[in-house]
Amino acid sequence: MTSVKDMLSTHPAPGAVDEEALARCIEECVACAQTCTACADACLSEDMVAELATCVRTDLDCADLCNVTAAVLTRRTGFDPDVTRALLRACAAVCRACAKECESHADRHEHCRICAEACRRCEQACDDLLALLG
Amino acid sequence: MTSVKDMLSTHPAPGAVDEEALARCIEECVACAQTCTACADACLSEDMVAELATCVRTDLDCADLCNVTAAVLTRRTGFDPDVTRALLRACAAVCRACAKECESHADRHEHCRICAEACRRCEQACDDLLALLG
Amino acid sequence: MTSVKDMLSTHPAPGAVDEEALARCIEECVACAQTCTACADACLSEDMVAELATCVRTDLDCADLCNVTAAVLTRRTGFDPDVTRALLRACAAVCRACAKECESHADRHEHCRICAEACRRCEQACDDLLALLG
Amino acid sequence: MTSVKDMLSTHPAPGAVDEEALARCIEECVACAQTCTACADACLSEDMVAELATCVRTDLDCADLCNVTAAVLTRRTGFDPDVTRALLRACAAVCRACAKECESHADRHEHCRICAEACRRCEQACDDLLALLG
Repeated sequence: MTSVKDMLSTHPAPGAVDEEALARCIEECVACAQTCTACADACLSEDMVAELATCVRTDLDCADLCNVTAAVLTRRTGFDPDVTRALLRACAAVCRACAKECESHADRHEHCRICAEACRRCEQACDDLLALLG
Repeated sequence: MTSVKDMLSTHPAPGAVDEEALARCIEECVACAQTCTACADACLSEDMVAELATCVRTDLDCADLCNVTAAVLTRRTGFDPDVTRALLRACAAVCRACAKECESHADRHEHCRICAEACRRCEQACDDLLALLG
Repeated sequence: MTSVKDMLSTHPAPGAVDEEALARCIEECVACAQTCTACADACLSEDMVAELATCVRTDLDCADLCNVTAAVLTRRTGFDPDVTRALLRACAAVCRACAKECESHADRHEHCRICAEACRRCEQACDDLLALLG
Repeated sequence: MTSVKDMLSTHPAPGAVDEEALARCIEECVACAQTCTACADACLSEDMVAELATCVRTDLDCADLCNVTAAVLTRRTGFDPDVTRALLRACAAVCRACAKECESHADRHEHCRICAEACRRCEQACDDLLALLG
């Protein structure tokens, strides 16, 4: 697969944000979105789906928000620190909520265990980038 | 077109959020996303697109974030006030940024004038819903 | 709300596609995406969600594909008839599948009844636009 | 990053599609979407953006469609071969169009060169999966 960093390094107007932290956050958002989409669908196929309704919903929110965060962070033209910070806070919030929800079923559903880990990594990457943006 | 309210009223677990304000915010997000997508593309076809690069970028961010906000607000199963508030703040921030950018070209580009208005209405609807969520 | 037609009429390079049919297809895609997102979540909150798993899944696919079709049709710069036709065929296919699935629960779930109607209107609008594109 | 295959292997109702080809197609769609988002924004920051307007537009279409294809392929509950085939055809069409467009600037813009490669890989993965689906 094409690396996120390869594309960052070819941008004609790269901007001031640390490229390592940026690339890591984009990668974690992309991975978390895919994992949450998979977890929502795996939950849907479980016999006990009625008990997993909140998990499906939170997975869908997390997938949507991580996908948008990846796209907004990937764009470097006309960088807006206020929008970026507000979005990273929202993304960290939904990753935290999704991690918490998935952790509560992690011992019974391997997809929730893996998904909780992806959410925690993404939450951390958002928090790390927020700290750098000041 | 199916109204947002028709679907809200058929939900088996509607929740405590005021349905009027919720429906209005979803409608404004959906309209703003479509309008920003159109404005980004109209800017791309302008002769002076080089001067509109930041406008295209902000339009794309605003379209993405409004679409996700509409989806998250539409979901009522397992409502999470913290995630909703953080997302509404991010959506209001990007609508404000996009309105400001489009307003600066509004006298030369009718698509930017209309888009700025859609962004201001969406920003207001997000702020109104935030005030209700406390 | 801003009308889709207002934005189409301000585009500096409008292209050859009939604007009435285009606007109608965009509007139906936007409405269908919102309705399917709502139906998926309403299904999730039903007691009998285990019997609605396929409906949730089809709703999610239909929402995703209608949103993308709306965005691609909204863009008029560098129109590509081959991509547009292939996408309209995929969108009509998922609308047909979602309508069929929702129709099978329409007597028990009002959200499925409304959703099936939105899907049928969107399927028709895609087919109509396909016929015009030749 | 969480691997696509890890999540596929934990699904309670995996279905009949070859998991290797499925995982590869999802991975290529996810990578292509991120790369096209980056290429669109890099084009926007080029001095000669006016000559790259069609490239930006095709990048945006390709990013949107690859993201949806990844999501639809990730879902395995209630698999629908007709929708999947129509979507894979549309995704292959937009990848081909985007590759062709980016290849025409590949000698002047490294981001277009890398993006064209990601599009060709994704087009191939879609065609391979289509062949398997029969």
